[in-house]
Amino acid sequence: MANMKDVAREAKVSVATVSNYINGKKVRSEAAKNIEVAIKKLNYVRNNAARLLKTDQSPFVVFVVPSVWSPFFSELTFWVQKYLNKLGFKMVLCISENDYEKEKSYVKMAEEQRAAGILSISYSDLTSHVLSDIPLVAIEKETTGQFSLISSDNYAGGQLAAKELINRNLEHLIFVGSTNYESVELNARKAGFEDFCNNHGHKFELEEVKTRYDKKQLLDSVNKIIERIISESKKQNIGIFAHTDETAFLLIKELIKKGIRIPEQVQVIGFDGWNLTPNTKLSLSTIRQPIKEIAETAVKQLNKEIKNPKEAEKARVMLPVSYRAGETTIN
Amino acid sequence: MANMKDVAREAKVSVATVSNYINGKKVRSEAAKNIEVAIKKLNYVRNNAARLLKTDQSPFVVFVVPSVWSPFFSELTFWVQKYLNKLGFKMVLCISENDYEKEKSYVKMAEEQRAAGILSISYSDLTSHVLSDIPLVAIEKETTGQFSLISSDNYAGGQLAAKELINRNLEHLIFVGSTNYESVELNARKAGFEDFCNNHGHKFELEEVKTRYDKKQLLDSVNKIIERIISESKKQNIGIFAHTDETAFLLIKELIKKGIRIPEQVQVIGFDGWNLTPNTKLSLSTIRQPIKEIAETAVKQLNKEIKNPKEAEKARVMLPVSYRAGETTIN
Repeated sequence: MANMKDVAREAKVSVATVSNYINGKKVRSEAAKNIEVAIKKLNYVRNNAARLLKTDQSPFVVFVVPSVWSPFFSELTFWVQKYLNKLGFKMVLCISENDYEKEKSYVKMAEEQRAAGILSISYSDLTSHVLSDIPLVAIEKETTGQFSLISSDNYAGGQLAAKELINRNLEHLIFVGSTNYESVELNARKAGFEDFCNNHGHKFELEEVKTRYDKKQLLDSVNKIIERIISESKKQNIGIFAHTDETAFLLIKELIKKGIRIPEQVQVIGFDGWNLTPNTKLSLSTIRQPIKEIAETAVKQLNKEIKNPKEAEKARVMLPVSYRAGETTIN
Repeated sequence: MANMKDVAREAKVSVATVSNYINGKKVRSEAAKNIEVAIKKLNYVRNNAARLLKTDQSPFVVFVVPSVWSPFFSELTFWVQKYLNKLGFKMVLCISENDYEKEKSYVKMAEEQRAAGILSISYSDLTSHVLSDIPLVAIEKETTGQFSLISSDNYAGGQLAAKELINRNLEHLIFVGSTNYESVELNARKAGFEDFCNNHGHKFELEEVKTRYDKKQLLDSVNKIIERIISESKKQNIGIFAHTDETAFLLIKELIKKGIRIPEQVQVIGFDGWNLTPNTKLSLSTIRQPIKEIAETAVKQLNKEIKNPKEAEKARVMLPVSYRAGETTIN
């Protein structure tokens, strides 16, 4: 690729003259003409990587995300990229696949490349690897507490799911999700559900399914639920809250395979609010995370910290979720 | 952020000594010890942006894609990022939203940042904006012909859809998709379907629906299809090939809303092979694009062109598609 020296040689002027011309400073008109011709001939493009390095401003923001191949993460990535672009940043996409070593290497890369900042969703303690004073905003999952955190109100979401199911006069409530410590936000969903049920004197049961989809475990849970449907005299009184849309989706597929009618026999509410594309919604009833608002808030906070690294206060924002009626509940 | 000078000052050695130490050259043991202490104290991280600039090697590959918020593109982005990472590249994600001006600005950015290369899916003529000799590999959509192109065999996919429907003894075949020139690859899907039907003496009808989802147009098409179901004496003889999974998905939702039973009354085959996550498939019968192989082939080709810009031959690869049976056909 042609550089400034090539342009200078071609235009028969000094490199300093080319530099002045490119940076909008005054240059003799004949020199300017020759430089212009040389630029066109050589397809010279200004080297911004070099220019930005001198001014210590990188256009790159590193986005560390467990996956992009999942409707929740792909929608989030879409909005994060859009808001970063609006502010003149470019996104370096780093998919961690929940791999701790990968996360570490991405943080190291961000520091070595002098990236402007990091946005991350990490379920390990990624933030503990940050050695430098590079601005970082965490989405959803908090770790050390020293960085800004933008998340959904997962606890209120769990409460909301319980409320929606109880309002439908469903006697038998089942929580399908992780029942052991797995992640703070999944635990919050479960705790919200449990607390709301307990506070309203409503019994419920727990079916263990981890986030990392385990086919055998899911089939076991489905079979238990089916046994319950058969053994109950009333057949239209089961309500399920699944801790993610992915779990809900797989559960529904299995129930339908076994001949269970949804929502007539079993009503299901998921969590996340998957939209397959901007125009394509799933028919799942769900607790919807405010994905667009999470992206906007996180990007704006990161920008503040990049622009004023010393003065910007760290933010801790918890955004409200909402119930979205689909076809897996009787509405 | 601490730089080499700060480390030298702290360790009371010259900048050259620090540089030697960092680059693995021999340094007096006392100096090495002092430098090590200084690096830890100052949280010094090597500046790769500067280092790479000198060696003229950028780790960044720019990926221009219409969207990431759609199962096809999110799966493709997942694999592209994975294969880029394997070769030591970082992905700069550039979502164009099919906006010509955005595409142009991304190409300019790639050139100004001296990115190692560009991977693009563009439905306009993005490649005509490439001024420099930056390596570029196009996925799916060809434009000027001067760059490498990796795509699915869309024509064979259209033929395969027709074959699958005809094998089911469906008398009434309908193509739902764009019937005017919209894009080369969508036209190829339609042409493959038409040619196969014509060559086998099978009549078919066309229902116009554009890629950019038009609710009214889709409802009109659905209503026409329903009229046909009602007016036909046989009620189990309609087969539909929709030119994308998105169209198929929306069509099925509308048909179910109108009380049409799928696959008993209408069988539907889409095109793309959406997987919502690595573990979550849709129940749609579809022509599956080899997304992983497309990503791998494109990244490997780009790497060849980056490593040997003058000698690497341009590639034109068309990868085979396959039929994936789901629950929207009788199999």
